Amino acid sequence: MNASGLIVRDAIEGGFTVTARRTDTYRIHIGEQLTTQLPGLLGELVQQLGSPGLLLLVDTGAAEHHLGAVTAAATGTGLPFQVMAIPAGESSKSPARLREVIRFLAQHGAARRTLLLGVGGGMVCDLVTAAAALYMRGVPYALLPTTVLAQVDAAVGGKGGVDLGLAKNLLGAFHQPAAVFIDPALTRTLSARQVRNGLAEVIKVALITDPALFTVLEDGAGRLPTVEQLTAITASAIAAKLRLLAPDPYEQGDLRRLLNLGHCIGHPYESATGYRVLHGEAVAAGTAAAAQHAYLTGRTTRSALQRILDLLTAYQLPTVIPEMLRDAVWDQMATVRRIRGGPLHLVVPHQPGHCTITDDIDRPSFDKALSDLAARP
Amino acid sequence: MNASGLIVRDAIEGGFTVTARRTDTYRIHIGEQLTTQLPGLLGELVQQLGSPGLLLLVDTGAAEHHLGAVTAAATGTGLPFQVMAIPAGESSKSPARLREVIRFLAQHGAARRTLLLGVGGGMVCDLVTAAAALYMRGVPYALLPTTVLAQVDAAVGGKGGVDLGLAKNLLGAFHQPAAVFIDPALTRTLSARQVRNGLAEVIKVALITDPALFTVLEDGAGRLPTVEQLTAITASAIAAKLRLLAPDPYEQGDLRRLLNLGHCIGHPYESATGYRVLHGEAVAAGTAAAAQHAYLTGRTTRSALQRILDLLTAYQLPTVIPEMLRDAVWDQMATVRRIRGGPLHLVVPHQPGHCTITDDIDRPSFDKALSDLAARP
Repeated sequence: MNASGLIVRDAIEGGFTVTARRTDTYRIHIGEQLTTQLPGLLGELVQQLGSPGLLLLVDTGAAEHHLGAVTAAATGTGLPFQVMAIPAGESSKSPARLREVIRFLAQHGAARRTLLLGVGGGMVCDLVTAAAALYMRGVPYALLPTTVLAQVDAAVGGKGGVDLGLAKNLLGAFHQPAAVFIDPALTRTLSARQVRNGLAEVIKVALITDPALFTVLEDGAGRLPTVEQLTAITASAIAAKLRLLAPDPYEQGDLRRLLNLGHCIGHPYESATGYRVLHGEAVAAGTAAAAQHAYLTGRTTRSALQRILDLLTAYQLPTVIPEMLRDAVWDQMATVRRIRGGPLHLVVPHQPGHCTITDDIDRPSFDKALSDLAARP
Repeated sequence: MNASGLIVRDAIEGGFTVTARRTDTYRIHIGEQLTTQLPGLLGELVQQLGSPGLLLLVDTGAAEHHLGAVTAAATGTGLPFQVMAIPAGESSKSPARLREVIRFLAQHGAARRTLLLGVGGGMVCDLVTAAAALYMRGVPYALLPTTVLAQVDAAVGGKGGVDLGLAKNLLGAFHQPAAVFIDPALTRTLSARQVRNGLAEVIKVALITDPALFTVLEDGAGRLPTVEQLTAITASAIAAKLRLLAPDPYEQGDLRRLLNLGHCIGHPYESATGYRVLHGEAVAAGTAAAAQHAYLTGRTTRSALQRILDLLTAYQLPTVIPEMLRDAVWDQMATVRRIRGGPLHLVVPHQPGHCTITDDIDRPSFDKALSDLAARP
């Protein structure tokens, strides 16, 4: 469906007022064992797009387990396709790797209707979205995320980006996918730590907007969900994220976003460790810090704080930022303030399903929140 | 105005259907001596955007004549600003230059609301649009085009791009400006050749969709327009381009575009000369070739062909592609076909105000059209 267009109003004199509208409609397919239907789904998609071919961009971690299924699906479309392996890891979210992907697209004759399919974790989702946004001013792409984290977060929202030096996602673009394929069964090859890493983002959106999902996770009591349970959890988490994105999916309005819960401190923490903690773990620690600060500033009760910390702990997610990193985290937060040209807009939880945005946090409050968390029994 | 949003429909089972809508509204100001009002207009704009600062990206050719007026306007906003000089010339439309611009933005603390102002010809418009699209997934930008060509073409439509190797605009993005300032008085410092270079694009849009504008140009009998005449001509040309963009401003639908008149052969010609002919000159030669082909294939009359060639000739624009370049132009056309993965969709004029799109042109027809043009008295 395409209801885009320009509306041009002539001024009485001196020019025009132009309103550019863009509409993109796509499907997020969610299903346990969805990958078995991938040949058909992919076939329909390339037919609908009129794609002359397919280019698969697969991270080396995902390739190990899923390359067979993905190439089988690509073969099933009957179209010519090529595969590019993307070295796994955050360091591939770089301008250099983006250039390599673009060069690969050009070398393999990618045209305006060629479909890119990104297969892998959050890095591949962000990188492929950025490449699809930039190549020929936008080509269609689909995503098959293979980690819990990517399924609930990076694959949803059409945000492409690569890091530039210290700044995450400094280079990127919004570009909506042609389709997203979410198959929670793919995550069975992940380690428990990686599953929990993804559940941290689920806890985050539940805390922001879905108290029922929060309770589902509490009822799970820290046990890793079955694929069936994970499918329901993932669908709820995606629905919650879409609800939060809905009013302003292109971030044209207010830049303060509830979705940043856990990220205002978590991102700087992740960065200060040189990305040795996983993203979800950093978000968990950032969420804990925000919750502790919310308690200390009278925004949440002790029992709500306890529920949040208990849930993170049940899933073996960190709630403490090591004291030796505290200065480095604070310095990173200062860098973010400088880059944004303004305060951090710390998101704080009041209770599951209700968060608000504060202006910022000062150093004594930051230290107090982190110290209190570290001192918990 | 921002009427963007997501509409999410839950499927009965198995996922979501997402419709992402984006709306951008902006003003194209047109006026002789508009630059004298620039301090006020720019001041209003940065206030409306909530910009913490301004970054001016000025091509070295434009800087020579207009830097004083532009920095005065920036000073008038009361905001901090920095100026980056962009070396004039098509070679600045490169990934390397784009990287430099992005690095400049990061170094000078450009934030999500910082306004970029691009000042110069088509290269600066394309480069600044691309940089604004990519930096932090999109920052606001305005354009003050200083050439006739940029005023009627590159500054209108929100298409950013840089060239990659042989392929023009292979890397880029759509990103609507926050405002465009068109002051035809700025073009008084241009050479006659550069003015005519811009008029070639005016002849093109007139030929596609505005027979009255075509007649205005015929009545001008090849004399360079006064600033007052140029203001009216520019406003008509921009209106015509906006009309042509209106149904599909993001090129999501049919990729065959009437606006490509003169470009299917003109672009390859420009490229085959190593950009030694100016863009408008190449488009003029490409338009002449398309018109000759239209005549030879029974799509236009001898008298309409004559009017088109006479108008191009009156403005001292080329209608002949040198025979020694013919093979190189044809090879470039083959490259474009390969990159696009399909035929060229040659646009052919029937009469002023009416053009259609053909599937492609074969080598004998191409040679015949070019030979007939070369043999004209």
